[in-house]
Formats: sequence, C-alpha cells, structure tokens
Amino acid sequence: MKLNQIARLTPDATTQYTELKALGFIADPAEDLTTLVQADLPLLFPEAYSDAAKQEALANIAIDDTHTLRDLVEAPMQWLNVTTFYAAALQLLGFEPFTDYQLSDPASFMTATQLPAVASIATSADFLQALYLLLTTRTKHLVNYLDDLANRGFFAHYQDGKETPTYLFFNGKAQAVFDPRKLVREVVWVESDLDTDHDGQRDLLETTIFRPAATDQGVKMPVLFTANPYFHGTNDEAVKAITHVPDPHLAVKTVSHTKAEVTATPAEPMALPHKAIEQTSTTAEVYADEQGIYSLNDFFLSRGFATVYSAGVGTRGSDGLRTTGDPAETASAVAVIEWLTGKRPAFTTRDGHTAIKAWWCNGNVAMTGKSYLGTLSIAAATSGVKGLKTIISESAISSWYDYYRENGLVVAPGGFQGEDADVLAVDTYSRQKRTGDFLRVKPQWDQALAEIAAGQDRTTGDYNAWWDARNYRNNLANITCDVVSVHGLNDWNVKPKNVIKLWQGLQDLPIAHKLFLHQGQHVYLNNVLSLDFTDQMNLWLSYELLGVQNGAKDVIPDVTVQDNVTPQTWHHYSNFGAPATDHSVQSLTLDQATGRGASFVDNATAIFTAHHQTSDDFEAEIVRPGKNSLYDDVRLWLDLPAFADEVTLEGIPTLSLRLWIDQPTAIISARLVDVGDAKRFTPNASVIEASGYQLGYDFKADRIVEFGEGTETASKLITFGHVNAQNPTNAYEIQQIEPGKPFTVEFELQPTHYRLPKDRHLALIIHGADMAQTQRPTTITNYHLDLEASTLRLPLRSDEN
Amino acid sequence: MKLNQIARLTPDATTQYTELKALGFIADPAEDLTTLVQADLPLLFPEAYSDAAKQEALANIAIDDTHTLRDLVEAPMQWLNVTTFYAAALQLLGFEPFTDYQLSDPASFMTATQLPAVASIATSADFLQALYLLLTTRTKHLVNYLDDLANRGFFAHYQDGKETPTYLFFNGKAQAVFDPRKLVREVVWVESDLDTDHDGQRDLLETTIFRPAATDQGVKMPVLFTANPYFHGTNDEAVKAITHVPDPHLAVKTVSHTKAEVTATPAEPMALPHKAIEQTSTTAEVYADEQGIYSLNDFFLSRGFATVYSAGVGTRGSDGLRTTGDPAETASAVAVIEWLTGKRPAFTTRDGHTAIKAWWCNGNVAMTGKSYLGTLSIAAATSGVKGLKTIISESAISSWYDYYRENGLVVAPGGFQGEDADVLAVDTYSRQKRTGDFLRVKPQWDQALAEIAAGQDRTTGDYNAWWDARNYRNNLANITCDVVSVHGLNDWNVKPKNVIKLWQGLQDLPIAHKLFLHQGQHVYLNNVLSLDFTDQMNLWLSYELLGVQNGAKDVIPDVTVQDNVTPQTWHHYSNFGAPATDHSVQSLTLDQATGRGASFVDNATAIFTAHHQTSDDFEAEIVRPGKNSLYDDVRLWLDLPAFADEVTLEGIPTLSLRLWIDQPTAIISARLVDVGDAKRFTPNASVIEASGYQLGYDFKADRIVEFGEGTETASKLITFGHVNAQNPTNAYEIQQIEPGKPFTVEFELQPTHYRLPKDRHLALIIHGADMAQTQRPTTITNYHLDLEASTLRLPLRSDEN
Repeated sequence: MKLNQIARLTPDATTQYTELKALGFIADPAEDLTTLVQADLPLLFPEAYSDAAKQEALANIAIDDTHTLRDLVEAPMQWLNVTTFYAAALQLLGFEPFTDYQLSDPASFMTATQLPAVASIATSADFLQALYLLLTTRTKHLVNYLDDLANRGFFAHYQDGKETPTYLFFNGKAQAVFDPRKLVREVVWVESDLDTDHDGQRDLLETTIFRPAATDQGVKMPVLFTANPYFHGTNDEAVKAITHVPDPHLAVKTVSHTKAEVTATPAEPMALPHKAIEQTSTTAEVYADEQGIYSLNDFFLSRGFATVYSAGVGTRGSDGLRTTGDPAETASAVAVIEWLTGKRPAFTTRDGHTAIKAWWCNGNVAMTGKSYLGTLSIAAATSGVKGLKTIISESAISSWYDYYRENGLVVAPGGFQGEDADVLAVDTYSRQKRTGDFLRVKPQWDQALAEIAAGQDRTTGDYNAWWDARNYRNNLANITCDVVSVHGLNDWNVKPKNVIKLWQGLQDLPIAHKLFLHQGQHVYLNNVLSLDFTDQMNLWLSYELLGVQNGAKDVIPDVTVQDNVTPQTWHHYSNFGAPATDHSVQSLTLDQATGRGASFVDNATAIFTAHHQTSDDFEAEIVRPGKNSLYDDVRLWLDLPAFADEVTLEGIPTLSLRLWIDQPTAIISARLVDVGDAKRFTPNASVIEASGYQLGYDFKADRIVEFGEGTETASKLITFGHVNAQNPTNAYEIQQIEPGKPFTVEFELQPTHYRLPKDRHLALIIHGADMAQTQRPTTITNYHLDLEASTLRLPLRSDEN
Repeated sequence: MKLNQIARLTPDATTQYTELKALGFIADPAEDLTTLVQADLPLLFPEAYSDAAKQEALANIAIDDTHTLRDLVEAPMQWLNVTTFYAAALQLLGFEPFTDYQLSDPASFMTATQLPAVASIATSADFLQALYLLLTTRTKHLVNYLDDLANRGFFAHYQDGKETPTYLFFNGKAQAVFDPRKLVREVVWVESDLDTDHDGQRDLLETTIFRPAATDQGVKMPVLFTANPYFHGTNDEAVKAITHVPDPHLAVKTVSHTKAEVTATPAEPMALPHKAIEQTSTTAEVYADEQGIYSLNDFFLSRGFATVYSAGVGTRGSDGLRTTGDPAETASAVAVIEWLTGKRPAFTTRDGHTAIKAWWCNGNVAMTGKSYLGTLSIAAATSGVKGLKTIISESAISSWYDYYRENGLVVAPGGFQGEDADVLAVDTYSRQKRTGDFLRVKPQWDQALAEIAAGQDRTTGDYNAWWDARNYRNNLANITCDVVSVHGLNDWNVKPKNVIKLWQGLQDLPIAHKLFLHQGQHVYLNNVLSLDFTDQMNLWLSYELLGVQNGAKDVIPDVTVQDNVTPQTWHHYSNFGAPATDHSVQSLTLDQATGRGASFVDNATAIFTAHHQTSDDFEAEIVRPGKNSLYDDVRLWLDLPAFADEVTLEGIPTLSLRLWIDQPTAIISARLVDVGDAKRFTPNASVIEASGYQLGYDFKADRIVEFGEGTETASKLITFGHVNAQNPTNAYEIQQIEPGKPFTVEFELQPTHYRLPKDRHLALIIHGADMAQTQRPTTITNYHLDLEASTLRLPLRSDEN
C-alpha cells in the first residue's frame, strides 16, 4: 500500500504551535513533555467521554508486545520513544500489527507506505511536532487523521456557546466543525434570460440548496455548485425507443465546407421583462429526495461549504427544453452563479411572485461534477462569470463534436452505441416527469427535438455550425477562474481528447490549471485510496473560496498522472505532452513494422452479426494478438519495432496513412496496442472498503476503491482514432475518392500517457468499421496501404521518473 | 411490473375515517366532496409549504391531456371521476404517463401491476375510501404511498408541541413520526455469565445502541436487535493465511459412532461473582462508525423502534474469544436481550464500574439479520429467553454441520472453498483489531483456535459431539417466540436444508412460523421491489413489539414462495413439502432414465487442475448438457422421463443408490438439473434504482432490486447433494467398503421449490468430487451403478396455482 500525500503542509513550529493550541492540545506554553502527553493522548479518543472510557481506549493500543498506550501515558519518560510512538500511531491510523506491520518496527512499514515520521521524540517541542504531523497524516480509510477524529466526534462541541459559529483551519484546510446533520434543504427558482420553451416568459430554473444550519446563525458560506442535468432523473424507457441503430450505410459525401461556413452565430440576448418582485428570506419548498448527490460535495458540508444542485432548462421543476450542450445550458448554469452572487433574482415558487436572495452565501462559488456535470462546469467557466472562482471538472466534454463525432464520422461514446445529442436530450428531459407541466409544452418540445436531430446530422458526420455552437473551446479566452481537470486515461466514453485539448487551450491564460489523469474509465477520483485528492481539494477550495493563504497553487502539482504499471504510484509534472521541453517525437514509417502484408478487407459487420457479438466482444477480439482472432482478416496488424528500453508515451499520437480503397468512401480505424503477456490493471477499480470513506460525524459514507492488477492478458488498448476517408485533414472539408486511386488521410489518435515496459512492444492495428463506436456499414470494402508512405508519430516523455 | 401486496389491511369505513382524521385529512364530519377534495389533495405535497407552491405542485399532475390536478381541485364536481383520480394517483405513486400508462386508461395498467382501485368516486365517503386506499398502496419506489409522503416531510411536525412524543399507527402499522436524524448513539458493555477467555472474569460484551431522541422525552421503545459478529470488521488477511486447501486425500474411515457418542454434553453454568455496581443513566461512549448497519433496521428508526447491534464474545471491544456457533455465542446474544429486558447488568465502560439500565426500552425485542446474524437469531430463540417476541432470520444456519459438512464429507459454503469453522473464528475475531487488548489474551486465543481445529475434524467429516453442540435444532422445543424465516432457493452458501429442517422442526410448537423463499442466493429480501416484505414486517413488528392488534398472524401467509419462471410472482401456501396434504411423491428407479451407460470415473481433480479452472467454471461445466462438457467422462448423465404436464417440485428429493466402486471410499455427488433451452432468472437481482428505497425523511437510502430473466441457457441446477460412500445412512455411522462389491447409500438432496414448465425435463447427474464444495481427491475412482436398484424420490406439489 502506498498512501501518496501532496496536500500536507509543513508550517514553521510557531504556526504548528498556534494551530495545535486552537485544537486544545496545548493549555500552557510551559507544559513539559509528561504533562503534554498525559493531556493530549486521551484527546485522540473523542468517542470516549469519561476518564474510565478513555483509559480503556488507551489500553487497547499496544506499544509493544506487553504494554499499551495506557502505560505510556502513565509514565511517558519511561515509555515514549519514536518506536513506541509510531507503533501506537499506526494503530490510530487504522493499521493492524501482525497483519500490516510489526510493533517492534513501525518504521519500515511507514517508509513503504509513504507515511511521514519525526526522527526523535525527546522534548515537548518534538512531541508537538510529532502530534502535528500525525494529525495531518493519511489514515487507512482515505481521510487524514484529524478528519478521522472529526468523524468520531472530535469537533462535536466546537461551536458550543458561540453566538455565531466559526470556521477552523488546520494545516491550511477547513476542518469539520459544522454539523452535517443539521442542514437546511431548500428549493428556489432562479430566473434566467432564456426562453427556450418559447412561452414568452423567462425560463425559471429549479435550484436545490443544502446549507449547514450555521448559516441561519450568521455564517456566510461559499458554495460547491453542481450543474447536474440528471439530478431529477432520466427517461430510460424513452431513450430505449429513440436510440439509433448504427447505420448500415456510410454516406458518400458531396459537399465540402469552409471554416466560416461551420462557425456558429451567437444568439441574440433575450429582452423579456423581469417578473414582479416581492421579497422574502425564507423558501416555500423543502428538498426531500436523496439522489444525485456527489460525495465530495457532502464531504465539505461539515467544513462550512453549502452545496447547490441545479439541473437546468427542461428538467423536472424547471422551465425550458433540453438543448444538449448549447449556450442555453451554459446560461442555465451561469444564472445560478449569478443568483448566488447577488446579481440575479430567484423566486420561492415558479410563478415568480416572491423573490429571495442567497443571503447566506459569501459570494464565492466552485463548480464540481463528472461527465455532463463537469462539462457544464467548463461551459460556465467560459462565460467568465464573476464569483465563479474555480471549477473541479471531471471526465468532462470540452467540445460536443468530440463526444458524438470524430473526423467526419458518427461515433458513439464507449458503451453507448447509438446514442447521440437527441438521445441525451430525451434522456435528461425530466420535465416530462411532471406530466401536467410537460403537456403544456409538448408541441414546443417535439419541435426542439426535431431541430436537434437535424442539427446533429447523422448523415455526414461532419462538423457544422450546430456543433460549433457546442464547442466550449471557442470561448476559452473568457475563462478567468482557476481550473482543476480530472480524467481517466481509459475513458472511452468522454475521450481524453476533451481534457487534453482543453489543457492545451488554457496554456496561455493567466489562470492556474491543475490536471489529474488516472487509470480509470469514466469514474470519480475522490474515493481512490492511493491519492489524497480529497485533501488536495480541501487545500484548493479553502484557498479559492475562503481566502486561506495556504499556497495551494504551488503545493498542488500542475500535472498528476497515475502510473499504468506500478499500482498506487502517481507522477508529478509541470507539463503534459509539450514537445519543446522534455518531450520528443518518434516518427516511423509503417514499412518498419513487422506485419502481414498491407491489405485488409472491412467485413466486420457481417462477422459481428453472424456471431451475435456485443460491442464488448468486438473490442476484446479486435486487439487479441495472433491468428485466432475472429476479426483477423478485417485488420492489418503491424508489430512496431521494440524500443531498446522502457519508454513513456505522452501526448497525441498522429497517423498519416497513404492508401487506396475499392469504394467511394470508408471508415478507417486505428488502434495502438501494448503487446506482451503481462498482468495489467483491471478496467475498474476494486472496492477496498464498502462504507469506509466517512463524510462527516454521524453522517454519510462512500466506498473506498483502488486500481490494481488483474490476471495476465496478452495485449491492451493504449489509444485509438477513427477517420472518414473522405475527411483527409479536418471534419468539414471533404475529398472525393476514386476507387483504386491512392489518397492520404491524416488524423490524431486520442491523447495518452502510457509507460511501456522493456519486455513489451507496440502494435498498430488498422481496420475499418468499429462495431463499438462507428456506424456498421454492410458494404464490403478492400483497403491497401502504401506502408512506405504512411507514418506514425509517437510523442515520448524523455524525463520519466 | 407486478407490485404484490399482502400487508394492506381493509378496515371498516369507521376505522378508515378515524385513521384519516388522525392524519389531518378530515376536519369536520359534515364536509362535502368539494370541501374534502380541496382540503386534502394539497396535503399530498408536503415538500411545498406555501399555498403558491402547493398550487404549482397540483398543476404538475395531469388528469388528462389538457388538465391537471389544479383544475380538479378548483372544480371537483366537474373533473373528479375514477379515471381522472387514478390518472393522477399513478403519478403520485411515481409512475409516468406515456411510459408506464395512458392518462385516458389508468385502469388497465393498475390491473396489470396489481394496484387496487375503488369503483366509483361520487360521494365524500367514496373519496375518503379512495384516499385511504391510495395511502396504503405501493409506490414505484418500494414503500407505500404514506411512507413516501413521510419521506417527503408529511410527518415533519407531527410531534410539535407535545411534551411526550407519540406513536401513530395507520392501517395497522407504525408510521414514520420520529426524526431518524435525531439519534442517540451509545455504547454499553453487557455482562454475560461466560468466561470464554479464561481470565476469571465474566465476559463483557460491547453493545451499540441507536435510539430515537424521543426516548429522552419519555417514549419507551421496542428494539430491533442484530447480533452481528462482523459488526466491528473482519480479519481478511489472516483468513487468507488460514483458509484450507481442499484435501487431495479422502480418508478411509475405520471408526463408527453411535448417536449417544455424538451427543454434546451441556456446559456447566458459570458461577463467577457479578461486578460491583454504581448506577447511572448516561453512557460514557458514543458510537461513531457507519458500517454493518441493516437497512430494514434503519427503516424502523423513524417508526419508533430502537436498533441495537452486538458482535459477541471475541469481537472488537468485547471480552472473550470466538467459538463459531457454540452455546457461548448463543449466550452472548441472549445476554443483550436480558439486559434490554432488565434482567442483567450492563456497564458504561468495560471495567464494570458503573452500571446502566436500558431504561428507554419497552421490554420487547425482535432479532433481525442475514447469514451468521440470522443464525444467532435462531440460536437466541432456542434459549426461550423472555422478551424476545420474534426473530426475522434470513439465510440462516440452523445446524453448523449443515454449513461445513454433509453426510460424512467436508463441504464448503458455496463460493468459499476451504473455509471451515476455524477460518470463520479467525475472520470474526475482531478483538485482534484492538492490539493492546488482543495481546493480553493471545495465548488463550491460540489454544481456543487449536481446539476448534481439532473439534471440527476435517479428517473424517463425520458428525460428532463438537458439531452437536452447534446444532440449534436440538433445542427447538425451547422456542417460545414467533419466527419469520427468509431464504434464497439458490443459496448454495447457507443451503436451503437449514431453513427447511427448521421449518419442519417447528411444526408442532405453539408459535407462528412464517416462511419466505425467494429466487436469490445469499441476499436480503427487504429491497426486492415485487414483494411488500418491508410493509409485511411493519405489520408484523407493530403487532409483536408494540401490541397493535392488526391480525398480522392471519394476514401474512404461512409460506410465501417466489416463482422461478414468471418474474415478480409470489405464491402463498399454508404448508411446505408436506406429503400428507396436497403433495405427492414420485418415485422412479434410475433405469427409467435415458442415460449413457451406468459407469463413470472420478478424475475431476486432474481435469480441474490441468485446465486452471475455478469453482465457478466447474459448476457451469458439470451441468452443461451434451458431449462437449469438459467433465463429460466424470459424470453419469441421466435424462429423466418428461412429465406429461408442468410440475412443481417441492420438498426434499431423496436418492437411494446401489453401486460399486474400485476404491475403499469415494465422494458421491448428485445434481438435479432443469434441461431445455430457456430464459431463466439471472443468479443475482438487478438494480432497479440505486438510492430509491428511502429509509426516512432526510435520512439514508438503499437500492431497489428485482430478480429477472437473463439470456437463454441450456440447463440450470435445481438442487444437489453429496455423500461419503462410507456413510450409507447418516453422518456418524460408517460402513467399510470392499472395492468391487456393491453397497447402497441413501441421502437427501437440498430442499427445493421448482416449477418445471412442460417443454423441459429433468436430468440427474451423478459424479464424484465437487470441485466447488467437496475435497479434491487425486485418487482416480471408478463407479458403476445398478440403475434398477437405484431410486430417486421427487416430492411434488399437487395444488400449484
């Protein structure tokens, strides 16, 4: 086990002293070592609140085979030393002697696990330093030790007797001193400038607030806001009905476009009158549901952050219609922030009669969430809205074209073949769940859905003005908030291109951008044990929203990447895939590969159908080495020359192919594969502890997970890409193909960071249709590559640690 | 979807009137229909607490394509009829027009889903009857509509202004009128009469209490007590080290035993002095952990039931050592009940200094839990302890021999090959997690563990006095409480024999015994959507623990069995497998079967090893029809004659085999299989809604699941059994086998309830070692059956509905 820790600060002794005093560990500056030990160690058992109970708790912690912490507290000068202290400390952190470590040698386990220790405990100052370090050390249950103490009631009486409750910061981070059970759960309707349902009225947006009751006593709190279109449910049955069957015909395109032709025109601003306003400070509706909550948000409730959820236009309880990523959805999210920061009205009911202010908000907002939720964080950031200080955007889309299309092809998000923008609109149109409300706008909705179906254009798959209006990267220059991006390197749903293109686009802006890349698919990072992501976000949000000068921007590395070979290992860099600095590009023509000829046929749809395969089956088969793959004839397998030593791919591989086909158009897919028998990480993280990640005292808990090795496999997909043969350079200009006549296509594979050990090699697989992601044409197409004239460019990191 | 409902009562109109009045739905007996409708329907939106918010909520519910409940409330006489009422009611219950049903025809959906409706709503009385019925109708989210209203705040102010909070009963069941967020979380140490760790002191047992804060205001509450040895964690690493490798040698047994020799001697009662007692009413320790909680218990917190957990001797925080099912563990559970009912002391700390009473308890206790937890419920019931009114025992062991042994063989619980009583003792010995405490009793623990290893006797696999001490069925006559038993018909971990032998043993006792058999494996039933198990348990516990005269014993059927062919269908019977009444036994000699000879060889271990198979692989392969199974040569596959019509097997199939073998001993396994291509239920229930089963207002939620059909399969295991060839009649008397000389063995297969449709037939598979369950002998053994002299007896239910 390795418990990597980034967010622990090491302040000077004076600061440590002051902070320990605030926690109650120091009564008198003159206390000697014995007095300190005898006063402080019993405080580490907050669930025991009589002396006798504390004595028993001390006696449960062994310091050697025959003595316990109770002996040590009775006679500190006799028993206290570095070994006994850490023998006990590891038990306090949740580790077990005999199983995890030996009582006589805690040090070697601590080194292996990357837990910090002091060198000596001989004086009061030493002890306080060791105590400070211990309180900020990670436990076996994901959170820090002081968090763990808080989860056991350490701060249960912190606010007692105070007229106005107060925050507590320790080690630069907000501590859990507010009662998460005492929550005010409210609903308001935020007025937007939109009228997406064309009823002549501004769309009002239902917004849910969970605020610690301390706000009622005068504490102004910042907000973690999650714009979650799924918050009020999805229309799963309607989705089944509308999901597209992958088209058996690949269109021959005839019309090419210019950049200007595919550029979106900004919409006119609305000019409807605001509602009449009567003012109140109390809401008229309570929120009683328990679904759609993000555990990272919940973790911060007890730390003095309110959490706010809003699902946006066209969701249950709100006005408007779903629009799948267009500027109206951005405006929905922005409107909530503007209300939170006092610049826009909200009402206690949807009739707009009585206005209510976010009087309890300190004016600082962060956005959080994964997938569509993280996407709307990016969207809101590109508005430059004031008060939005940072976004923590996970597995997010930065351009919707990169979600549903690729290089002139219709592609599916991994696992959701046949999904498209219209399907997602239907899925999230939870306004339908309030039937009385839904029926009033049904004709408008039918019309809007038809417009989405037309705009998305499943015929050509080309980039157009409709998609351009859904490309947040057009507006990156507006971003003024700091950005945290989290993405899975194996996320074939929202593909890594989305985060890396965002990363690249933000490079020249005067903002901080922190990038986390993990080995998961489309999942959250906060409950992964080996990284202190939650604690880093506490450092980050304490700085961004509560103004704590904790150096968060310097402490958190610009780039954190999880290793794909050694479990529980995270690398830290100052850049990602930047060729000018510590990167190089290896360029090789494909005739250098060991292959089986230069031709293949695309007959994949027929094989797929005949064998009743699923998308998962196809994805497993197409990368299986050797002649025994069902799809062996439909792919060109090129084994690349082995590297002399281990290498780390990092960045965006590109491919330039010279080929001819015997049809007027074709799908070209390319997969870069790691080949060699080896134990590799499983696709999904394993559950380490079902309810181990505790989110507060007497409150909720989430599971703890970790990525790790599975059984031996023969190969693994590193990255892939797809291109329409008619789109040789971009997604809107097309070429006419003359069957049998050579042409060239250039395209990027998905960005990657991949360490390839010495005993393994790369293979490049070129094939036609991808049953899991592209359309499924039934036309049998023959391909012939000019390998000498085809080039793969692999970006390599040259300073891998 | 079918929402089966048993626990809804239909009281007379006067009772309904009184109960509706208590909920606030009737202000004045003279109210006319219009007044009632206008007053009552807005009450169904408790989250909206202004008139405007309620009006909007009403307008969200459609009654037809152009009108809503708001129109109906404005003009009831114009709009109210049975169709509009149920068009709206279905939305209130969580169903969706267009997706689930048509607004113009709610009736046909309600019939299909088994939701009740009134025939006419023309008068005040009609309306009140319809309202009463609606409040007691099941929602799409598992709970009843009144429960759903409570989850949305309907009872949030129920206790306001009362000096002493009060219970509310509706339709015979306790309603959620207590705040589940306001819980007192306490720890006490109950003094037992045991001294399992031989320190000369009575073992004190840590016990955790969650009681609604209303107990502090004078409400006496009953207790749902779960004796959960896993409550304080398990020793997973130590288990890996001690788990047995299935033995490659099957012992040739030489010593036979008599019944008297294998009968356990009751232990002498302890006679140690009680601790000195100082009295208090407040505890010294709070419970801060969030793990090991059962959602059914949580559901009842807001209904005025305290929940109590205790892990027993040898667990973290308690004295004593683990003993795997012996009388000391029974006494641990009983001690807690005796404390709850005022007959035994408990202390605020483990030093036994200050005693504390369960002063908040009304003296009535039920036990709940699955697996080991349910097992200890049975154990406690066999003590006859006063105050234990009922147990709800799920997937529970009734004799430990039937968990780890079978007919003279060592067998594993399904999925846990190599586990045994000693492994489970190590697993649950969480006292080890408090190292200081653990080290004080390490020598005693090592000794106790050695005694378990000796007592369990993995060599012969025979029944002995050690196992007899762990056979709760010896003491069934002591049971005075009512029993609810729940078991999965596909539970090969705790096998169905445990529950059916218990059922049979309780037949003549003057207690109520309710049996629920579902199609799951080793899982809880309370979150399965198609049955109102939670509501039935509310009826049951309101009767048993709160004395509500609701007819629970008559309303709840004696036997409820989930159908294995039609999803969401539950049968109700007054008996199970009782040949005398509506059952018959079909007896057939095996020469009537269509087989492939009468011989086979047991070479399974070699095949298993050579092919690197898992237990799961073996279990799939051994029942795969046709010549292509890897294990075809090691099994005798006998296709039984097809039945003329559909039949339902119910009860315990038995097998009498006449055979010879070429070795002095052998394992004989038999599997009864359903053969024929068909879609059958998947082994695990599917998640319908992740957090849909809400356990209270602003409280926790569990997932909702349902069993359903998977993809087509060729066969499915119905039941199986294993016997040691040396144990022809029982588990302690042995026969010496002369190789080549015929002998007879008689044994039972696991009990079953299985509907076999007309187009399918049974096969009986006889084979040797079972890689998933038995030892794995490497001796190659040849078997030859005398089919004419071998008989299968199949119990059939003759009144299947």
